[in-house]
Amino acid sequence: MNAADPLAEPSLVLSMGEPAGIGGEIAVKAWRSLRQGGPVFTFLGDPALLRGEPWRAVSGPEQAASVFRDALPVMPLQLPVPTRPGRPDGRNASAVIEAIERGVALCRTGRAGGLVTNPIQKATLTGSGFRHPGHTEFLAELAPGAGPPVMLLAAAGLRTVPVTIHCSLRQALERLNTDLILRIARAAAAGLQQDFGIVRPRLALAGLNPHAGEDGTMGTEERDIIAPAIARLRREGIEASGPYPADTLFTPEARARYDVALGMYHDQALIPVKTLDMSGGVNVTLGLSVVRTSPDHGTALDIAGTGQADPGSLVAALRLAAELAAHRRRNRATPHPPQEPT
Amino acid sequence: MNAADPLAEPSLVLSMGEPAGIGGEIAVKAWRSLRQGGPVFTFLGDPALLRGEPWRAVSGPEQAASVFRDALPVMPLQLPVPTRPGRPDGRNASAVIEAIERGVALCRTGRAGGLVTNPIQKATLTGSGFRHPGHTEFLAELAPGAGPPVMLLAAAGLRTVPVTIHCSLRQALERLNTDLILRIARAAAAGLQQDFGIVRPRLALAGLNPHAGEDGTMGTEERDIIAPAIARLRREGIEASGPYPADTLFTPEARARYDVALGMYHDQALIPVKTLDMSGGVNVTLGLSVVRTSPDHGTALDIAGTGQADPGSLVAALRLAAELAAHRRRNRATPHPPQEPT
Repeated sequence: MNAADPLAEPSLVLSMGEPAGIGGEIAVKAWRSLRQGGPVFTFLGDPALLRGEPWRAVSGPEQAASVFRDALPVMPLQLPVPTRPGRPDGRNASAVIEAIERGVALCRTGRAGGLVTNPIQKATLTGSGFRHPGHTEFLAELAPGAGPPVMLLAAAGLRTVPVTIHCSLRQALERLNTDLILRIARAAAAGLQQDFGIVRPRLALAGLNPHAGEDGTMGTEERDIIAPAIARLRREGIEASGPYPADTLFTPEARARYDVALGMYHDQALIPVKTLDMSGGVNVTLGLSVVRTSPDHGTALDIAGTGQADPGSLVAALRLAAELAAHRRRNRATPHPPQEPT
Repeated sequence: MNAADPLAEPSLVLSMGEPAGIGGEIAVKAWRSLRQGGPVFTFLGDPALLRGEPWRAVSGPEQAASVFRDALPVMPLQLPVPTRPGRPDGRNASAVIEAIERGVALCRTGRAGGLVTNPIQKATLTGSGFRHPGHTEFLAELAPGAGPPVMLLAAAGLRTVPVTIHCSLRQALERLNTDLILRIARAAAAGLQQDFGIVRPRLALAGLNPHAGEDGTMGTEERDIIAPAIARLRREGIEASGPYPADTLFTPEARARYDVALGMYHDQALIPVKTLDMSGGVNVTLGLSVVRTSPDHGTALDIAGTGQADPGSLVAALRLAAELAAHRRRNRATPHPPQEPT
């Protein structure tokens, strides 16, 4: 925490992600696109991934602003073995993980304003002993918040949250219950207040079944699970509504009526964002003690090293992280704390 | 059939749909927007729904072209009781059904080139003895084709087909099997050839689970059900591919690589179309013996009578029906019939 000026904005850190992927290439491209206007960020990783672009070693994010116009600031973290584009090497897994850990630590101590994570190759890390289902769960362990971590997808004009995430559709049906919806919805509402600066976030909950069950004729989860959660959220003062038929919940007119849509399973929340987003979609983890965003694409091993990678989503992730960090710091500086998840 | 000139284009017929909904209003608006350039269509319904707009009684679709510039051609079908906007009356159900039946008959005898159906209020019809789950199933009985009827959603640059349709998500999981996918995929491929004039349609099949199951770690339906269907389709000469993660199947780049995407359940296929479509989405039934399209919205009882209804989807449905009718007639006129579903 910067005690002297609670509204000063520490710069961001960007973890290298899978070194055999496009992380280095899009980091450089994002720096070129942001060097004039910011936000300022520091690359946490091996400078060899930057392929001859101007970079400068810094000892911490505090030094990044002074070099950012001329060179990409880097906190160097050397890879054990040289990397070949498109060919992940398990021997580099420890360095990939270390970049994330150092990024979180810099945010937790207030030296960085937020962490943006380049995509990782889960299978490669798992083969090297990484025991978390994904980035988000790892971060939740490193920087736990008051509630559960919540995955939020943000594109221009649309934010969505999946209530169940990385499990089969069959498991999603088994896991979906009123309590889970309540926990995710409360954390989403708190995150939108704290990090997005939305005073009274409007939550729209999708139905699970076609036409939201059409009055129980095509499924009863709307009546038995989702509607009770909405009623409870409203009693708690959260502006929740639904359950809405999912197919018409993401039309332009519908999108204007809520701040976040909750999908009951992964694809219900992710299809609309990725269908709409022209490379500007961002993945945000709400409910951590640090600000974290990431591009909403993978490591793109198939095009790594070809120079074709599009930095659009990473640029959007950096911009959004800066915004979220500013909101969070402003909220911390005010006497009225945001509503906490219960 | 017009034996003298197999490429002559009989005009379209439009059923009135639920008279208390927006069907009359959008029919008039569509006529205004199409009266100069076509396609020509005849309204099958009660002229009272047209609210003072110029209309002219015709004895059949053959007469429609000569009046279309000056007035909306109507084959009058009087409602038993006067209608109030937003208040469906079961006593009018028989006339709503009769409009559909007459439309199909005009297409089957070759007097009309295709049927466009205004939305119906299923609950009102069901209460009056209508025993079909929906429009599509009713039409499949009136005008059966060689294969199963297939629901196809078409928007600018995207066509999708749901493999399972109007059932709960739980039932969709139970019903999904390789044989069902095969039957729907074959009928979709045949329909795209016959009605859309696509010689070798490219079918992209979505996975059921997040990330298409991620190599079996999040569900096995991709491996056990969907992949075998794709392999079989390819052996039959149909260009099928997948299963693809559904969340990235509808990005602009992905959409360019197929002619139709098959979703495994209702919302997977409908969310992307309705998210993208700016009121130009169209519902097509492939696999009938007649051409049939409809707007992809409902009766909109909440705004009926206010003059606010957007005719965009109906206009798109009329235009597409004319295109499909032309393709179908052209295919019938050629010595090589399109590939039939087996």
